[in-house]
Amino acid sequence: MSKRIVVALGGNALGNNLKEQMDAVKSTSKAIADLIEAGYEVILSHGNGPQVGMIQLAMDELSKTDAEKYPRIPLSVCVAMSQSYVGYDLQNALREELLNRGIEKPVATVITQIGVDPNDASFEKPTKPIGSFMTKEEADELVAKKGISVMEDAGRGYRKVVASPQPKKIIEIETMRALVKQGQTVIACGGGGIPVIAQGNHLKGVPAVIDKDFCSELLAEELDADLLIILTAVEKAYINFGKENQVALSEVTVAEMKQHAADGQFAPGSMLPKVEAAIRFAESKPGRKSLITLLEKAKDGIAGQTGTMIQL
Amino acid sequence: MSKRIVVALGGNALGNNLKEQMDAVKSTSKAIADLIEAGYEVILSHGNGPQVGMIQLAMDELSKTDAEKYPRIPLSVCVAMSQSYVGYDLQNALREELLNRGIEKPVATVITQIGVDPNDASFEKPTKPIGSFMTKEEADELVAKKGISVMEDAGRGYRKVVASPQPKKIIEIETMRALVKQGQTVIACGGGGIPVIAQGNHLKGVPAVIDKDFCSELLAEELDADLLIILTAVEKAYINFGKENQVALSEVTVAEMKQHAADGQFAPGSMLPKVEAAIRFAESKPGRKSLITLLEKAKDGIAGQTGTMIQL
Repeated sequence: MSKRIVVALGGNALGNNLKEQMDAVKSTSKAIADLIEAGYEVILSHGNGPQVGMIQLAMDELSKTDAEKYPRIPLSVCVAMSQSYVGYDLQNALREELLNRGIEKPVATVITQIGVDPNDASFEKPTKPIGSFMTKEEADELVAKKGISVMEDAGRGYRKVVASPQPKKIIEIETMRALVKQGQTVIACGGGGIPVIAQGNHLKGVPAVIDKDFCSELLAEELDADLLIILTAVEKAYINFGKENQVALSEVTVAEMKQHAADGQFAPGSMLPKVEAAIRFAESKPGRKSLITLLEKAKDGIAGQTGTMIQL
Repeated sequence: MSKRIVVALGGNALGNNLKEQMDAVKSTSKAIADLIEAGYEVILSHGNGPQVGMIQLAMDELSKTDAEKYPRIPLSVCVAMSQSYVGYDLQNALREELLNRGIEKPVATVITQIGVDPNDASFEKPTKPIGSFMTKEEADELVAKKGISVMEDAGRGYRKVVASPQPKKIIEIETMRALVKQGQTVIACGGGGIPVIAQGNHLKGVPAVIDKDFCSELLAEELDADLLIILTAVEKAYINFGKENQVALSEVTVAEMKQHAADGQFAPGSMLPKVEAAIRFAESKPGRKSLITLLEKAKDGIAGQTGTMIQL
């Protein structure tokens, strides 16, 4: 039995425009192909912060030219579009990398809707940054002109913020199950999935972006994965990050990681949701592990040589 | 054994904006659910003329605001985005309609790339209309300003035209096969698929739009479907269309249909590609049939009560 791994790739790691994305998917594909070549069953999910922001901006620009002919496109539809914008490039690059290694394995992107709770507290208090980074001046102008929410994002600049409800249900899960069962590599839950709320049998898109780490965690649970890998910009999670007494975390228990989180060791909107998702998966069933590391260290991390591995 | 049907839905039937699309997918879903309820295995494909035109226009407007930050997005990527723009709505509406009838059947959209021949003659002579309809004056202005090709589209106004190469290979066919095998309803080959050319193991997107009827025909062959239904704006194909001696075609052989096509009975860019795709499928293997009719007549058409049914 090969081990099943859900890999959550950061939206920011995919670049801010198409050129950057096409370069990014190449290195991503090498790292993912390493895992597939080593015999792991891989399911890929990815963020879409810069991508959905770009798409929404484009749709807004179009609407400005003729608001009657081109009414504003809801954020949920922009998330849908970001899934194929990223998925097309990613499935293509991974297919190519696998073929270069003599592996003929279908790779497919499944458009994914995620059910959320209409009463999720996040609808009251938007916290999820999307779109490209802005200076404080640009951000202030946007707030004044459009009345939208912005926030400073982990020292990298200012961004728009929207609600980020918890994922409750993966609507297309049976499709992913069928494909994984057939040995295919699936790209799913792109951008955290299209957020929808159930109204009877109807699913209504909502203006939100689901955290891709929480969504990947749910996906890993639903597919009964052995390991959830959350890729990020650092090799390990740290306590006292950036201070003189900074300590890298290697093998950590869920209980220890919870304590570090409670101590405020991880930055909200950056490392904290990754840690929370990692904890949630590791404690969901005995034997399940979560790994937080760099893309290029994923394989070494599985082997226990680097990264932050969390388990019960 | 239930019969397998590929249904090709027109992009224009999906409306010119999101509001129109959300209404259109509802009636589409009722007609498709009728077929599923009657026991048929349905695979859905759809056009994307208005949708991909809208998306490309939006991306061009964004690029105008800052060409360095937002370089122009190639048409192939816009086609990819149109697949999830339409697929999300369509899978959602069909899921809802099926649930309303007590049918729990997964419905999924698969992002589809289609291999084309780099030497396809259509690259020399663009013929495929995309985007919204323009007046002659608007079209002339676009030609003068941007040097792009436009054409008059079957009496409905002017539109941009791009190359429309023949589909040669469905890259993600194994994914569709796996899902159909599991009894899932698949939405595939949206907008005729993302046109790509093979460069070794690399697939390069090309600025073209593949005819959705030809692409659906290839899909029907590859999935060994029994019937290809090409939905259009008329209940039947006609000879001497619009004239006093107009005759509706009901049961027609491939040979008869070929003769009518050779006689110039069908409008290029409108009924002609549908008829050609229908002929191609009907002659691909004994027993295969093609049906051309209205969406709401699909079920009656299968029963032989209306539409134009073509077979060897």
